[in-house]
Amino acid sequence: MINTLFLPELREMLADGKTQELADFCSALHPARVAEFMKGLSSEEAWAVVSKADLETRVSIFEYFEPARQVEILETQNIEELAELVEEITDDDRVDLLQRLEPELRDQFVLRLSDEERRNFHRLSQYPEGTAGAVMTTEVARLSESLTIREAVEEVGRQSEEYETIYYLYIVDEEEHLRGLVSARQLLEGMRQPSTPLKDIMETNLITVAADEDQEEVANKVARLDLLAIPVVDAQHRMLGIITHDDVIDVVREEATEDAHLSAAVTPLDQTYLRTPILILTWKRGIWLTILFFFALVTAIALKKYDWAFDKWTWLVFFIPLVISSGGNSGSQSATLIITALSRGHITVKDWWNIVWRELAMGLLLGLMLGLLGYLCSMFMIEGEELARSAVYVVPITLLAVVVSGTLTGSILPLVFERIGWDPALMSNPFVAGIVDIVGIVIYVNVALLLLGTA
Amino acid sequence: MINTLFLPELREMLADGKTQELADFCSALHPARVAEFMKGLSSEEAWAVVSKADLETRVSIFEYFEPARQVEILETQNIEELAELVEEITDDDRVDLLQRLEPELRDQFVLRLSDEERRNFHRLSQYPEGTAGAVMTTEVARLSESLTIREAVEEVGRQSEEYETIYYLYIVDEEEHLRGLVSARQLLEGMRQPSTPLKDIMETNLITVAADEDQEEVANKVARLDLLAIPVVDAQHRMLGIITHDDVIDVVREEATEDAHLSAAVTPLDQTYLRTPILILTWKRGIWLTILFFFALVTAIALKKYDWAFDKWTWLVFFIPLVISSGGNSGSQSATLIITALSRGHITVKDWWNIVWRELAMGLLLGLMLGLLGYLCSMFMIEGEELARSAVYVVPITLLAVVVSGTLTGSILPLVFERIGWDPALMSNPFVAGIVDIVGIVIYVNVALLLLGTA
Repeated sequence: MINTLFLPELREMLADGKTQELADFCSALHPARVAEFMKGLSSEEAWAVVSKADLETRVSIFEYFEPARQVEILETQNIEELAELVEEITDDDRVDLLQRLEPELRDQFVLRLSDEERRNFHRLSQYPEGTAGAVMTTEVARLSESLTIREAVEEVGRQSEEYETIYYLYIVDEEEHLRGLVSARQLLEGMRQPSTPLKDIMETNLITVAADEDQEEVANKVARLDLLAIPVVDAQHRMLGIITHDDVIDVVREEATEDAHLSAAVTPLDQTYLRTPILILTWKRGIWLTILFFFALVTAIALKKYDWAFDKWTWLVFFIPLVISSGGNSGSQSATLIITALSRGHITVKDWWNIVWRELAMGLLLGLMLGLLGYLCSMFMIEGEELARSAVYVVPITLLAVVVSGTLTGSILPLVFERIGWDPALMSNPFVAGIVDIVGIVIYVNVALLLLGTA
Repeated sequence: MINTLFLPELREMLADGKTQELADFCSALHPARVAEFMKGLSSEEAWAVVSKADLETRVSIFEYFEPARQVEILETQNIEELAELVEEITDDDRVDLLQRLEPELRDQFVLRLSDEERRNFHRLSQYPEGTAGAVMTTEVARLSESLTIREAVEEVGRQSEEYETIYYLYIVDEEEHLRGLVSARQLLEGMRQPSTPLKDIMETNLITVAADEDQEEVANKVARLDLLAIPVVDAQHRMLGIITHDDVIDVVREEATEDAHLSAAVTPLDQTYLRTPILILTWKRGIWLTILFFFALVTAIALKKYDWAFDKWTWLVFFIPLVISSGGNSGSQSATLIITALSRGHITVKDWWNIVWRELAMGLLLGLMLGLLGYLCSMFMIEGEELARSAVYVVPITLLAVVVSGTLTGSILPLVFERIGWDPALMSNPFVAGIVDIVGIVIYVNVALLLLGTA
């Protein structure tokens, strides 16, 4: 998706050293567009272009570069010029960026940060990936409750460059305990009575999150409450930072992609599909395929054990894929329904009885339906002399049993994982299918033996 | 997930008619919390509680009720009281709510709307579900560029109740053409020079979307640009409305859940898992299971055709599940990687050559790996007199061919769907697996015939 529209012009301007024209190009469009138009340039060329712009424009374009390009620029270009830029990046994004660098280079950038930002960096980078603390920014407006609306507006106007958002202003006491929230909306509306103290208009029923809370939980809260930002507090309710709506969207998308990959037995990627090297992608797929290979191997061993049965009734072989795929597919359906409902907060482990009951009912209904289809197919496909009259019931009864064990396995396993604190998405589709395959073959052969006799 | 903490007290207060206490309860906590605490009440009781609160509080609590409860209240409670509440709900949410009602009841509520809101309702409900128009709100601050900062602040303070957000203020000309954007942040910062005209500070490099644009594309734009809201314009660049960050989060989550369900062969649900009736859920799963049943039936027919081969070499049967699951799993992996990358905008159909090349390379690597494992298993598991020496190569060669056809099918099918304008997520995992199953069996038997001879 490379837009080549301006590439020749940009390269010509670079060759001719047209500094002013390049600076104009950088500020003429939305920074995201500028970054897009430069996708076809090398990282070196792109940096040469943006370094002509003023610092503010440079930072905003840089923030729209893809992570890989950002890292390449930091690794290759003049460190003093870059340090100036790194200082201006929002603190949570800066942590993400610097953590992608080699430790030595990262330390060089950290050393060049101002004292305050360096403290911020160390504080933020201590939170483990995937927690509220790792996503939050500390660049948040903290105001004293003794201010009036007019004083708050003046303060915000003076300081606003330092904050990631000024749409929510947080009121804290001397020890940084979170007391309330005033929105920019309230300030603008309040300008009609500018001497009202903030504490008279502030909202005190605040919803907060702890720094070690899972980012997915945080995203669920923000989404449910339609918030612009949510404050992160410590055990003493002291304000640590905020998580803003744009970070929440990123978290939601990231988690959804991770869950999708897990459910297809791919270890989640750290980069986009095209940027992930083929060998790494092969590895992330290969380990799961190998695990699933061993599931299939157990099925093979089971089949070998019943060798003589398949020898005797060859038609049993035809329906192996049908039995396996019916169990696997109904199990995947259940697993996915439960995993998505858990992650959206629509169900909790406490609903287990209700869930298992529903899955049992659905398993019976779906099993009866597939069983009926299986009966019809059996009538047409099973031939052979000396065939017991009960042979046509083997496939339908197996399908019923397999679908029920599929829905039960698919619903219970994610609940068990959630209960013991593992990611239920790990109990993803091919895994459930692998287990149901083995169970399915055992059921199949035993139903056949029961109905056809062992003789 | 029902919090029963306040239920007895609330029921007691209702029985004793303690209007003031109930009103206090409603305003004491964040409206989302109030709605949560009332989950254990019947819809009738919940409405009895909130109707004691003032209109504004009532509306905000009502908005946090689950859709099913909202509908139940509208269907059963006093229509005049409810009409007052419906009038106050944000216009895009109101359309969603009323469209869940029976047509006659919906018409009654629409009739009771103010003229302006009725026009809004008709305008918004004309956009098809899933487009930008269906998600946008028209309750947006439109200002004239001739205003100064001071005039704008006054205007916003006066009018702000009517707008869903005042964090972005849009500047339009007399014919509603979108000219620029001023953020609340700029207004607050600008209060130091309050007589500056808006047109001097407004941002004019705006990113907009068309009303018929897919909501997923819109979400991608907002997420990429970290926007609070994005304006929706018509072909003449006239402002129709905006889509706000909270709607974008809802869209992202909704699309992710839909994609997950599709990828497990479940038609996306309209309600949460527990609220979807068992019969509907069975239907949404059953149709896909039936379709997949017929795929498996084709595999069964293929197996029946090669009946004699399995009779002759019984050990071929053992590996049927292995062949099928290896092809299906590698196909699912490719399909999911491609579907998620397409929906995140990381790849486009134009990258097809690069994608197919990568998938071919990965298919070969993964196929060689599984083939090696298959070779080792074959050495231990295949027994029998008069066995050709080439027998141990049947499974490995089949695995290589099946995995490669899995990765190619799994990557090409979603790209083809995207190209012809269908949702690539439809080409979801079990579908790819179903196709690869059939191909796999055909490959398996033919490799066996080739190596073992037809005699």
